Amino acid sequence: MPLPTVHNLLHPLPSALAAEQFDSLINSANVRLERIMSQGQITPAGEWYDQAENEWVILLQGAARIAYADGTEIALQVGDSVLLPAHCRHRVSWTQPDDITIWLAMFFPA
Amino acid sequence: MPLPTVHNLLHPLPSALAAEQFDSLINSANVRLERIMSQGQITPAGEWYDQAENEWVILLQGAARIAYADGTEIALQVGDSVLLPAHCRHRVSWTQPDDITIWLAMFFPA
Repeated sequence: MPLPTVHNLLHPLPSALAAEQFDSLINSANVRLERIMSQGQITPAGEWYDQAENEWVILLQGAARIAYADGTEIALQVGDSVLLPAHCRHRVSWTQPDDITIWLAMFFPA
Repeated sequence: MPLPTVHNLLHPLPSALAAEQFDSLINSANVRLERIMSQGQITPAGEWYDQAENEWVILLQGAARIAYADGTEIALQVGDSVLLPAHCRHRVSWTQPDDITIWLAMFFPA
């Protein structure tokens, strides 16, 4: 078996993103790990993520905001993490428009 | 249920580390997520991690090297990730001495 090699999640990056990009890093029986890249994209107003799985997410680069169904909003900077329990309704209400924001998201059973 | 709050993994940090520090972030049935902080610490020479679980790790801050049992060494910079399959013998052969290195490690069943 070849020895494990290094894969950098911060570069190289696309020069700009016309749409959010989702890259599967791990897709195992009970856990999925994804890199998500955004540049200004948000969840459409009035739409909510209402997920059957728990999601733990950390911002690796950039800046973003997440809104909850009660109107509360949290701002995320680099290194900020948040655990979104299954069925915690949320949406991405802002991502920085000028540069790529990189999320690392781990999904696991509730 | 209170709404999820933000937890930053990069600050505040201790001013210096006399020993490696392991913080459990997620401890679920089939996945564990840990933040590991190192400052110059390495796996003792001749000792190897030989784990029953797969480990995916990313460097969030700092610099480190991992050695494999065949003598090969990989250098890790910020954003570098590596998937270490179960029973892939490895050791941490170097971490930067001057500042704290922060690893994010996900362990999941093989």
